[in-house]
Amino acid sequence: MDLSPDWVVGFVDGEGCFYVGFTEHPEMTAGYQVLPEFRVVQHKRDIHVLHGLKRFFRHGVVRQNHEDRWELRVRKLDGLKQVVSFFRKHPLKTKKAVDFQKFARIVYWMEKRKHLSIEGLLEMVKYAQGMNTAASKRLKEIESDLLGKLSKG
Amino acid sequence: MDLSPDWVVGFVDGEGCFYVGFTEHPEMTAGYQVLPEFRVVQHKRDIHVLHGLKRFFRHGVVRQNHEDRWELRVRKLDGLKQVVSFFRKHPLKTKKAVDFQKFARIVYWMEKRKHLSIEGLLEMVKYAQGMNTAASKRLKEIESDLLGKLSKG
Repeated sequence: MDLSPDWVVGFVDGEGCFYVGFTEHPEMTAGYQVLPEFRVVQHKRDIHVLHGLKRFFRHGVVRQNHEDRWELRVRKLDGLKQVVSFFRKHPLKTKKAVDFQKFARIVYWMEKRKHLSIEGLLEMVKYAQGMNTAASKRLKEIESDLLGKLSKG
Repeated sequence: MDLSPDWVVGFVDGEGCFYVGFTEHPEMTAGYQVLPEFRVVQHKRDIHVLHGLKRFFRHGVVRQNHEDRWELRVRKLDGLKQVVSFFRKHPLKTKKAVDFQKFARIVYWMEKRKHLSIEGLLEMVKYAQGMNTAASKRLKEIESDLLGKLSKG
């Protein structure tokens, strides 16, 4: 399956998801791990499209999401950088572009290891709250946890 | 907003719907009206994309679907012919292409006024049952109603 850049943009405008997870991780200085993730979910009848996208980005894993749903998931930094670089050159047309901008910034910050300090991570958590996919309540909790750590330190 | 054909194909592969409705209509010979419909639904934050698609196809109506959801809907024969002609030239890549093929055949049959005879309509109802968007139970009911009319006639 040969995918053109414009087709990929259109499809991801519809079906793609730029998500940033924050999970507790006691061994890290700031206590949390940052997990940016690019994801496209499809019914298994269209699993060929997920494999096509994986070849297109040359990164990611095709895996089961839930029951009949499968997903392409990109989590590794090299893959995320590839995804970010593609959508910078080929902008999304829906409001998903706003999430993408924030996602791209967070990937950039991770590369710069900003998430390893409490101050840096706090800024990232605040920034991620503007995303459409954000779990706002959870992020608020993490934010106050980090503020607590800062005031103690 | 300038949309390229490939972007439109990708977006419709994700978000488009090719639907054929059959509704009772006592004044028609066969007793049913055939309503093929091309539809793209979006959250209102992306209503600009629906207007972009409307300009792209030069047909259709942008209207509220449900609460925060809006839709571009193409129902008129001229518009449907335009949509069919576009996706014949620019094939969909997901299994939605199967629905599209059936949809296109039904639009063609309507143009040929096949739906005006009971035999013709019966064939269309049977054919539509293979569509992913089909309300199979309802179509089965219509099928047996038409078979009943045929045996009486």
